[in-house]
Amino acid sequence: MWTYCSGPPLQNALHACGGRRCGLSLRGLRHIQDPASQRLTWNKAPKSVLVIKKIRDASLLQPFKELCVFLTEGEGPFLDDPAISGDESFGPVTKKFCTFREDLDDISNRVDFIICLGGDGTLLYASSLFQDSVPPVMGFHLGSLGFLTPFQFDAFQSQVTQIIEGNAAIILRSRLKVQVFKENWEKKDGSDEKNIVLANGGVKASRPAVQYQVLNDVVVDRGPSSYLSNVDLFLDGHLITTVQGDGLIVSTPTGSTAYAVAAGASMIHPNVPAIMITPICPHSLSFRPIVVPAGVELKITLSQDARNTAWVSFDGRKRQEICHGDSISITTSCFPVPSICFRDPVNDWFESLGECLHWNVRKKQNHLGAEDEDF
Amino acid sequence: MWTYCSGPPLQNALHACGGRRCGLSLRGLRHIQDPASQRLTWNKAPKSVLVIKKIRDASLLQPFKELCVFLTEGEGPFLDDPAISGDESFGPVTKKFCTFREDLDDISNRVDFIICLGGDGTLLYASSLFQDSVPPVMGFHLGSLGFLTPFQFDAFQSQVTQIIEGNAAIILRSRLKVQVFKENWEKKDGSDEKNIVLANGGVKASRPAVQYQVLNDVVVDRGPSSYLSNVDLFLDGHLITTVQGDGLIVSTPTGSTAYAVAAGASMIHPNVPAIMITPICPHSLSFRPIVVPAGVELKITLSQDARNTAWVSFDGRKRQEICHGDSISITTSCFPVPSICFRDPVNDWFESLGECLHWNVRKKQNHLGAEDEDF
Amino acid sequence: MWTYCSGPPLQNALHACGGRRCGLSLRGLRHIQDPASQRLTWNKAPKSVLVIKKIRDASLLQPFKELCVFLTEGEGPFLDDPAISGDESFGPVTKKFCTFREDLDDISNRVDFIICLGGDGTLLYASSLFQDSVPPVMGFHLGSLGFLTPFQFDAFQSQVTQIIEGNAAIILRSRLKVQVFKENWEKKDGSDEKNIVLANGGVKASRPAVQYQVLNDVVVDRGPSSYLSNVDLFLDGHLITTVQGDGLIVSTPTGSTAYAVAAGASMIHPNVPAIMITPICPHSLSFRPIVVPAGVELKITLSQDARNTAWVSFDGRKRQEICHGDSISITTSCFPVPSICFRDPVNDWFESLGECLHWNVRKKQNHLGAEDEDF
Amino acid sequence: MWTYCSGPPLQNALHACGGRRCGLSLRGLRHIQDPASQRLTWNKAPKSVLVIKKIRDASLLQPFKELCVFLTEGEGPFLDDPAISGDESFGPVTKKFCTFREDLDDISNRVDFIICLGGDGTLLYASSLFQDSVPPVMGFHLGSLGFLTPFQFDAFQSQVTQIIEGNAAIILRSRLKVQVFKENWEKKDGSDEKNIVLANGGVKASRPAVQYQVLNDVVVDRGPSSYLSNVDLFLDGHLITTVQGDGLIVSTPTGSTAYAVAAGASMIHPNVPAIMITPICPHSLSFRPIVVPAGVELKITLSQDARNTAWVSFDGRKRQEICHGDSISITTSCFPVPSICFRDPVNDWFESLGECLHWNVRKKQNHLGAEDEDF
Repeated sequence: MWTYCSGPPLQNALHACGGRRCGLSLRGLRHIQDPASQRLTWNKAPKSVLVIKKIRDASLLQPFKELCVFLTEGEGPFLDDPAISGDESFGPVTKKFCTFREDLDDISNRVDFIICLGGDGTLLYASSLFQDSVPPVMGFHLGSLGFLTPFQFDAFQSQVTQIIEGNAAIILRSRLKVQVFKENWEKKDGSDEKNIVLANGGVKASRPAVQYQVLNDVVVDRGPSSYLSNVDLFLDGHLITTVQGDGLIVSTPTGSTAYAVAAGASMIHPNVPAIMITPICPHSLSFRPIVVPAGVELKITLSQDARNTAWVSFDGRKRQEICHGDSISITTSCFPVPSICFRDPVNDWFESLGECLHWNVRKKQNHLGAEDEDF
Repeated sequence: MWTYCSGPPLQNALHACGGRRCGLSLRGLRHIQDPASQRLTWNKAPKSVLVIKKIRDASLLQPFKELCVFLTEGEGPFLDDPAISGDESFGPVTKKFCTFREDLDDISNRVDFIICLGGDGTLLYASSLFQDSVPPVMGFHLGSLGFLTPFQFDAFQSQVTQIIEGNAAIILRSRLKVQVFKENWEKKDGSDEKNIVLANGGVKASRPAVQYQVLNDVVVDRGPSSYLSNVDLFLDGHLITTVQGDGLIVSTPTGSTAYAVAAGASMIHPNVPAIMITPICPHSLSFRPIVVPAGVELKITLSQDARNTAWVSFDGRKRQEICHGDSISITTSCFPVPSICFRDPVNDWFESLGECLHWNVRKKQNHLGAEDEDF
Repeated sequence: MWTYCSGPPLQNALHACGGRRCGLSLRGLRHIQDPASQRLTWNKAPKSVLVIKKIRDASLLQPFKELCVFLTEGEGPFLDDPAISGDESFGPVTKKFCTFREDLDDISNRVDFIICLGGDGTLLYASSLFQDSVPPVMGFHLGSLGFLTPFQFDAFQSQVTQIIEGNAAIILRSRLKVQVFKENWEKKDGSDEKNIVLANGGVKASRPAVQYQVLNDVVVDRGPSSYLSNVDLFLDGHLITTVQGDGLIVSTPTGSTAYAVAAGASMIHPNVPAIMITPICPHSLSFRPIVVPAGVELKITLSQDARNTAWVSFDGRKRQEICHGDSISITTSCFPVPSICFRDPVNDWFESLGECLHWNVRKKQNHLGAEDEDF
Repeated sequence: MWTYCSGPPLQNALHACGGRRCGLSLRGLRHIQDPASQRLTWNKAPKSVLVIKKIRDASLLQPFKELCVFLTEGEGPFLDDPAISGDESFGPVTKKFCTFREDLDDISNRVDFIICLGGDGTLLYASSLFQDSVPPVMGFHLGSLGFLTPFQFDAFQSQVTQIIEGNAAIILRSRLKVQVFKENWEKKDGSDEKNIVLANGGVKASRPAVQYQVLNDVVVDRGPSSYLSNVDLFLDGHLITTVQGDGLIVSTPTGSTAYAVAAGASMIHPNVPAIMITPICPHSLSFRPIVVPAGVELKITLSQDARNTAWVSFDGRKRQEICHGDSISITTSCFPVPSICFRDPVNDWFESLGECLHWNVRKKQNHLGAEDEDF
């Protein structure tokens, strides 16, 4: 699924730095990130690169090999994919690879730089591997441009070289830190912590939360149920509204162009420090999506009168059921994804809006209604 | 602006006929127009064709001349446009033309068939010339396809011949009959009808309505005012709602793909017997557009607490002010526009949705959110 | 689930009749149903009434009993619900009841009139019991007004009496006839028809379709899959578009205010002979909902490159999987539901828009943006 | 229009201070304003308060007087409104007033604190008086709650006292700094600066821009023209898109709930440092509104092929024509409006969404489509 290779020409340690900051506020209260100012800076040259390639896509095999040969130049251990390890000519290269077992080996401190080959999903996967600080990520699309994969593979050598030399604009894509608290978790474990808790005075046992770092969105929906979902949304402890409908999407700005846009949201540039809240097919004419400041604390629970459970997923993964008494807590993560820009945060985004979403594509000079007295 | 030519090969009288009708209702209550069944039938061969060309577009001059030469073959009077009458080589052709003065000469019974060259606006203009029964209309787009101009000019000779031979599918595009009643009209005329009316017992004098036949839409907006418009909407005599916002669009299905779609309406196939009601930037989150049955009687007036007048226009023309006490009455007209199809009502419409509006154009296999565990 | 009671004062046979029809078309092509003209007429007094009450709602028990006592006055057989049959005081009444086994007994010709107690779901259920002609239906809401249940229970006696006396406006709510063709149906049956078919020359065996009558909508979605659904939509045999997203809703005008409105559709009055097509969270910015004429033939299949199956449901019921090779065929049914109006089709609908959907509810004289120079 | 009163109990100088800041970024790049942390702090007690009351609203006269009596307690000069100066009993109070001539007297450094009586428009007007630093503003609604006027007048004495004592949460509402560059300005002035400019080498003379501080929005529309407007939008110097339609709205987050929401935008909490760009009835199905980071430089010009001029207004005021060659430059202003909260930035906003916009108001437990098998 992913491969980690180490050795020159990459050396370790990165630093993304911002330059000038323009102040918005009365007497310096607020600092705005200037999208143009952030550039990649390596404290030490990067040494280890993690290469992630979309699986089950044969067309990626050749680019993957080319990239690995280029990155290693004489070193590196081992890889497990038979399509690769079985390739005689590739043998010397694979020897320089490290292999990791997902969920078992901790690579968080051993990677200086990530390269993704595939689609936006590959980058979401990369994000999921790093639950705290994330190394800079460079995304190559093999087919068509993605929001997260702005690089074409054709000229990969010069482009990767430029990154390694520290010549790149970077955008810090905010993530959401999500915690799921289960009320009745002990039943599933069969553990005896329940007794301990009850001994503690009968306090309700909420399972120490499982935590996720989410780059696109947290989606709460009705799952396989044909009943509406019915969830309560809290902001900084206050009940804000109740969502009755197919569900609710809490997105980063990066995720605003993903599922949220399909559900009707406006699109938010990833440099805006915000969280987007979008209902899915709400059973209300007036439930317009809203944008709240990054840093607020959101909480989602089943409504008291919900007749069904809900389901939650994180960047489309780790789908799980939410029952009465459970809660999902969401806030802006301290660990954004430093995503390497092809040109810069502004141009890349508008390029993607056009390419991926055909934003405002229209017939030039078509007056639609021909509301035109000039015939 | 428009030209009328008579003589062979066109002879008079048309008849659009529908074939089989499928019943929808319990015991035969309702008849639905089968979009596939309507075809053009000439009772007598058409003799007179009205050719309308968009003015001030030099690129149309040559096609116009070609068409006229083709239509007349040895006969026909006179035309006034110097660009045409001054053309020596075109002289013999123009001799077969009739010329009309708009608003003065009545051509409604002298035209068997209309050909438009230009854009949708040309066809709207053609519609406006016929306040009751409309001859069949064939629309050529010179640039890109329009909803009302499905024909390309390249093969105009064979296509016009086919129409004349009665080999064509037709769609009856419903129109709206609109009447504007002005409360204080006598002041503007300086006539003395006011006295007569007052003598009649002080009854409020509403001017005998001016009437319009509208193919796309009636638009009521705030005009040059920067205040919101505030109008009441009545249906069959009942106050349905009050519109607070930039205005209100009442469209035919044909007009649903014009201004209404820009204001957020769903798009209605022109064979659906319906009227679309769409607010323009309503100051309400819940003012979703609605579709009501053809045949209902709508009335629009200024709300009692409106602080400004409103403005109304008809297919983008005849813009006029609506004051307190005035009213606009709208219903489905008895005089639709028989519009000749390039292929048939269904295919033509979906072709236009794609070409004119880029309907559901998207990146194939782009998973947008990359909510895709398969990487 | 439902109860059928017969005997006076209801006698049999109903007839819904329309009065005047206004013509829209050029030379009588099209007949529009005048919403105001349709009224209930009984050929013979109705004898048998089917009473349907929402199950598992204790608050409905008392109204149900009152209604039954009122309807029977001395006669009628038997009922199976222990909450009712066990009620001593209700015994004499239940004796006059007939009981049916759903899916086993055919009641389609034995009911003159239907009364529903509950919500819109009760009426959808009533609709599902009648796969061809449907008796007139009267819907009582016990809580708040529904689109299909406009009657309050308070004055049920006089209201039911009025209906029985034939004093009622009626609206014919169109339904969709839906057929599902399964490619590989024989595997599930274990029947030997497969051999026969193969003996027939290897022609693909499509199962004789299962058919549904749908009052609200046919919904195709991605079911429990987290992949996008990918379905092709055909109209009268032509591929119209491909839907990539959460799914697709094909609605009657009645259903346009149900799931479709939550997915962003305009709202269509049930007297408009049309079919609404609405994507669910489409992964395209330009996939606006469309309205096509009643009577067209729609077909939905999985796209060739769909990686997952889809799921279909009918008025929220009978959920089933759609695989490659299967197809869903949809058209306007010949058997609408004659739904009894509280006032009339126009007023009832606008009342429901306000009550159920808070349509265009807004703060009066709130200038939102305060774009108001007058302060 | 507005009144300025000085003297005890108000003393001068205010200070809005923020407390803790939560960091979002990798290594301290970005600072997010914590909505809960900002509170009003007076360096010196405020001495001068500017009271602005909506004009032409008789119902405000009494509250205005009460407020003035309360604010002054024995001092203060003069006022010009005859309705007030003519009031004998009010005479002693008015003596303590200062009067200003709008556009002539500079009050920017003489006001410590602003109180508005009326609607949101009153606060927009207050904003327009201060082209750089703005004193804290407290908005009283007399009728119903506004987004900018969260205070009820009933308990004005204790509430004003609390503000003066420095006991208040504050929200810094960002403004837009807008400059209009006219190409052919010298013609209108008749000044001879043209010659000077031409002497400078024939460089095109763009008028030194007129500048506006905008709290809600900059609106570019087609004005009285019935043609579409056609404007180009640039971001940081790059052409982003061309807007064909009724126009374009550039809003602050504060303005996102004003005109932008009517045009379909998502709603942005005023603490999000962003700029919203919303088309008005765009002639494109895919022109979804977008949100870009505060601090970017936007520029709007007529498109080269625009056949008409456009019109621009600023918070609904100062409407003016934009011709070929003119340009509008927009960026986040350095001078936000410190707006005093009734409770806090989060609660006030959601309160207003509900009260002013009926956000997500719906019928509880209404299952809309009654997609409910449970009947």
